[in-house]
Parts: sequence; C-alpha cells; structure tokens
Amino acid sequence: MRVLVSKKSLADALARVERIVPSRSSNPGLSLLRIDVQDDALVLSGSNMDVDIRARLTADARGSGSFAVTAHVFGQIVRALPGEDVTMELTESEMQISSGNYTTKLQLVAASSAPVLVFPESHAGSIDARLLSRALSAVKYAAAVADFQAVFRGVKLELGETRTRAVATDGFRLAYYHLEAGTGLEADVIVPARSVDELLRVLDDGEVALHLDAGQLSVEHGGYSLNLKLMDGTFPDYERVIPANYPVSITLPALSLAEAVSRVALMADKSANNRVDLFVKDGQLQITAEGSFGRSQEAIDVTQEGTDSEIQLAYNSKYLIDALTPAAGDIRVRFSGINASPSVVNDLGDPAYLAMVVPLRTS
Amino acid sequence: MRVLVSKKSLADALARVERIVPSRSSNPGLSLLRIDVQDDALVLSGSNMDVDIRARLTADARGSGSFAVTAHVFGQIVRALPGEDVTMELTESEMQISSGNYTTKLQLVAASSAPVLVFPESHAGSIDARLLSRALSAVKYAAAVADFQAVFRGVKLELGETRTRAVATDGFRLAYYHLEAGTGLEADVIVPARSVDELLRVLDDGEVALHLDAGQLSVEHGGYSLNLKLMDGTFPDYERVIPANYPVSITLPALSLAEAVSRVALMADKSANNRVDLFVKDGQLQITAEGSFGRSQEAIDVTQEGTDSEIQLAYNSKYLIDALTPAAGDIRVRFSGINASPSVVNDLGDPAYLAMVVPLRTS
Repeated sequence: MRVLVSKKSLADALARVERIVPSRSSNPGLSLLRIDVQDDALVLSGSNMDVDIRARLTADARGSGSFAVTAHVFGQIVRALPGEDVTMELTESEMQISSGNYTTKLQLVAASSAPVLVFPESHAGSIDARLLSRALSAVKYAAAVADFQAVFRGVKLELGETRTRAVATDGFRLAYYHLEAGTGLEADVIVPARSVDELLRVLDDGEVALHLDAGQLSVEHGGYSLNLKLMDGTFPDYERVIPANYPVSITLPALSLAEAVSRVALMADKSANNRVDLFVKDGQLQITAEGSFGRSQEAIDVTQEGTDSEIQLAYNSKYLIDALTPAAGDIRVRFSGINASPSVVNDLGDPAYLAMVVPLRTS
Repeated sequence: MRVLVSKKSLADALARVERIVPSRSSNPGLSLLRIDVQDDALVLSGSNMDVDIRARLTADARGSGSFAVTAHVFGQIVRALPGEDVTMELTESEMQISSGNYTTKLQLVAASSAPVLVFPESHAGSIDARLLSRALSAVKYAAAVADFQAVFRGVKLELGETRTRAVATDGFRLAYYHLEAGTGLEADVIVPARSVDELLRVLDDGEVALHLDAGQLSVEHGGYSLNLKLMDGTFPDYERVIPANYPVSITLPALSLAEAVSRVALMADKSANNRVDLFVKDGQLQITAEGSFGRSQEAIDVTQEGTDSEIQLAYNSKYLIDALTPAAGDIRVRFSGINASPSVVNDLGDPAYLAMVVPLRTS
C-alpha cells in the first residue's frame, strides 16, 4: 500500500498527536500511534487515557488498511525528512518512508495493539474556535497545578444556550471569561487543565463542533478530533465569594502594574508568599517589598475612585502578575476592603475577563 | 558615595561576571561580588576558584570605596531596572539603587568578605581576539565532559613565537585549530574547557593581552580581566596518532554530510554508540543505520579521490556531526584504511581547522 503526503502537513499533525501519546508507558500499547489509510486520507490517532486525539490528513492513498507504530520514533523521522513530500509504502510488518535521497524502514505493529478509540460521528453543539480559545487561555493560569483537591486542577466550562463561561480557581485566586454566545449544549463540565492545553493547540479559525457523552467532551475542529475525559466532583460556588462592594478602585495600564510588581517583588521573600504591599492614596499606588537582602519600592500615578479612602493590602506577587497577564490595555483593580477580602481585576478592553485575587493575611 | 552608570553597560558586565560567581557555595564569600568605586569607574569582580573575572565600567562616580554584595541578587535587580540609567548611593551597610520610579535598598557586606583577587598589571603577550575566539570555539567540542582523565577535559593552547594552536581530544576524536600567528609567549598550557566557555563570552574585536604566571593564564580584553587556572598533567602526544596516508578521500559540503548523518542516525541504536555506517564507492557515499525500530539509508554524490578503492567504516554519528559543525563550506574527509584507523576532516574554506574521528571497531 502506498501513500503520498506533504511533509509539512504530516509533521504538523504528528507534532500535535505525538505530544499526547506517551513516549514511555507501563502499558506499551499506549505509546503506539495508529495509522489508518483510507481513500485520499491518512488518519493518525493516539491517546494518553485523559485525551484521545485523531488527525485526518488529505493524502494520495492507494488501498486501505490499519497499522500501528511507536509514535515518538515515527515523529522523529518525519521531522528530519529532507524533502517536501513523503512516500510511505506499507506492508503488514514494515513501513518504508522515502523523502529526497533518504529512505528508512520502520517496523510496524498490528493495529489491534493500539488503544481502541471511538470519536462521535455527529456533534450536538458548536462555538467559534477563537472565542473558545481566548476564554480557555485567559483563565487556565488560575487552576492549581498539584497538591490540591482534584476539581481545582480543572477548568470549569459552563455551556449554556446563550452563554458560555470558562472558570478556574485554586482557592486563592479565580479567573473567569464570560461569552454571550451559546454552544447549543446545556451542561457544566470540568476539563483537566492539562487537557485544556492540548485542546488549545488545535484551535484555529472557524467553528468547533462539541459533543457531550459518557463522561467526555468531544471536540472536532480543522481535521482534529479530541475526546477530553471530564473530571468528577463539585466545582466551588465561586460567585458567592466575589464581593459586591468596593470602596476603592484604581485604573492603570495592566503592563505598568505587572512590570512594577515584578521589579519590586525581586526583594520579596520567596518563603513568605513573595509578598508585595500595595498602598493606594491620593491617586498614587505605592508598591513595596522587603526581604532578607533589602527593601524595594516603586510608585505609579493611577486614576483612583473612592478618593476619601486609602487602601493597604499585601499580595502574593505571582498571583497578582498572573491575573494581569491576559489583559492587554487598561485594567481596573477594585479593592473590597482591608486584609484578606478579595480584590477584583477587570480588563477594560475586554469586559469578558474577570480575575479575583485574595490578599495575604497580614495580622 | 554616588555612582551614575548606564543600565545597559552595567547589565552586560554583570551578566558575564554573574555567570562565574556561584549563586550558592559552601564558602559564602565566593557568592559575593566585589564592587570598587574609583574615579570615573565602577569595577566588579568575582571568582569561582577556576576563573577570576573583573569588569571595569566607565561611570560618573564621586568618591571611592570598596563593597561586596550577593552577586545573583544584584544581578536580578539590575536586569529588571526600568530606566536607561542607574544611580547607586553607597554607604558602609547599604546600596540604594534607583532607576525610573523604582528604588531598592540592598544590604552590603564588607569588601573583605569577598575573595581577594589579583590581576596582572602588565601582560607579556597578545593575539587578535577574533582569531583566538575562532580557534577555541572550533575545537572545544572535542574535549571530554566527564568520567575522563583530567587533561581530556581541557583545551591545550600551544603558544609560540610565530604560531598558536588550540587542541582538544577525548581519546576518541580530536580537533585542532592552527594559527600562523604568535602571541609573544612560549609555552604549552591546558585550560579547563568550562573556563574556555567563560573566556569566549568576553572575546570581541581587537587585541587580547595574555600573561602567564603562577599556574594561571591571565587575559585582558575590552574592559574585562580574567585569570584562568591551568590544569596539571601531560596532554597526549596527539600528532603521533594522526595517520600519514589516506588511500581514499571524498569532498562534499559539510552541511549535506551532517544533515544526512543526523537523519540516518535516527534509526541507530543509542546503546551501541549511535552507530552509522559509511560506504564509499564510485563517487557515491552511502550512509546506513540499523536499530531496534528498523533501518535507514541515504546516498550522496561526492568527489572521490582514490577511486580504485572502496571504504566501509562505522562511526559514532554524534562524533561525526560534531567534527563537521565548525566547517561552513566544503570539507574533505580522508580515510586512512579499514576498521579503527582514524579518519580526518579538513575544512577546505578554513585550512586552520582539522578534526580526527576514530571509527568504531566492527569486528
């Protein structure tokens, strides 16, 4: 059986599939990539148990059949191929890959050794890929990385008829991104943050088809199909903890604040939550930090609302900087009061984004 | 005491000094950077015991004095400074650094806590910095990284009246770079390969002043002074092992050979020296490799001398690729015979460079 495919499209698809397929696994079948040759198509698929992925490429294919190969070896070879096109000649036991003057013969394994993956034939919902990508990218930093209750390591997707919202929190900070656009689905699901990363890598222009079934969210977009296993558990009732009243708020460019906090935080004590102190008074924000090597400070002029009050709060500088990163232009930071009562960041250029950071307890 | 200096020149100098000063050390004095304020100059110095470094910067300085500070903390702060200029106000115990709206106060330590470094006042020799840089860069890959006799982890510098040569070998491959230019010195010295890396970072245009004394090579160039501790031991008599006769040689672009070997070697067994086989016959070079995942091959047309013979040899592909990397254009590869007799690579565009690779024993 003979397949002719462009090197670039094969390498691009493999790069995304190979990231997911583990290069080592206690289950050797899991490190295999399944190759299906169909009329005018080459289909690559693999899984890491949390994410199944399938890539469909247009190819000049004669015949049809199914094979499996060690994913990372195939990936290395394809990336190194010298020519613009790749010819693959497949037999039951061997795949000969030729490109330019280079030829290699790779051992094949029976397709039945690879995991059996099932992707839905049709999809009940859909959303614009750029919007979904922006929503997930904006909030995923707020998910916990480890040592936390499982749901904190996920991103919640609230899929409604007329609204879609992505939310992440680790209990110390929270971010959500609210779209006034529905998906045709009606459900709240929690996707592991690491699976969100893999989904983001395939999202491009156009529509994403979505389908919910049997504990997984299936996505189809631009030649890629993914099944994302959902997390069990109850996501915290986050709206309850967002304060209603803010006696003081300030407006300034997100980048100015992020850069100033980064500089000042160089002196902060890493073993004391990278603490920086913010002091707002008379239209000026003063940022200070102190640690074993010394003390630093920086002042920024801001537009202040609630000028009859002053605010003095301490934050983990890393959380503050993370909250500012998705915002491009001006932001408003709203302070709900003293000590450990949450502060809220709004992106004035993109009101869909909201971040909340809980200040450090200082007394 | 007050010093005004440009942020860029301070950050550039610190980047080079900070690389050498260890951020942690069982000897706490070693992680200090010494700061000397002199008339119109700021002098930074530090050491890792193998390399002493001193950087002299033009600065607007009032007063004079010596201080010490934890190098990596000072480095982090300077890199983050927002302005184009830096003002440093120094007292016995504190340095206040200001730039733009940002101010920080850093604890100082007595200068006597930092290592005492002595750099020569005058230098007996010199050489063009670009030539020395090219010579050291071209050969240092051939030095051993670990688990070898000490001298194999060094680069030998043969300093003569009318010639200068840099040589490195790990016993399996060798590289030298031969300059028909003297230094005014007359000695053979061995510099640790890691110290060579630090020297390469300060070499730029112009002359390098050189001085040999008390087991160290001192270098002065473009505001930087370095003392490089020399290695004891006898460097192998490498010229003896370079073969005199080569029945077959081939000429081809270095990049074509390196790329083809890289591609074919993807199938080579990492546990069997990344073996690739080269077969030269009738103006064609065939490269093959075989491993547990399969077999690959590539053929390249070459200009062959000694066409009545054919050559079949095996190499560690990594050593072959390393030997080709310093060469830009065409290279000649000369084969001295069969099995483990060395092959030699000459860069036709730069005859100063020679590399030797010992083939793998295959019987």
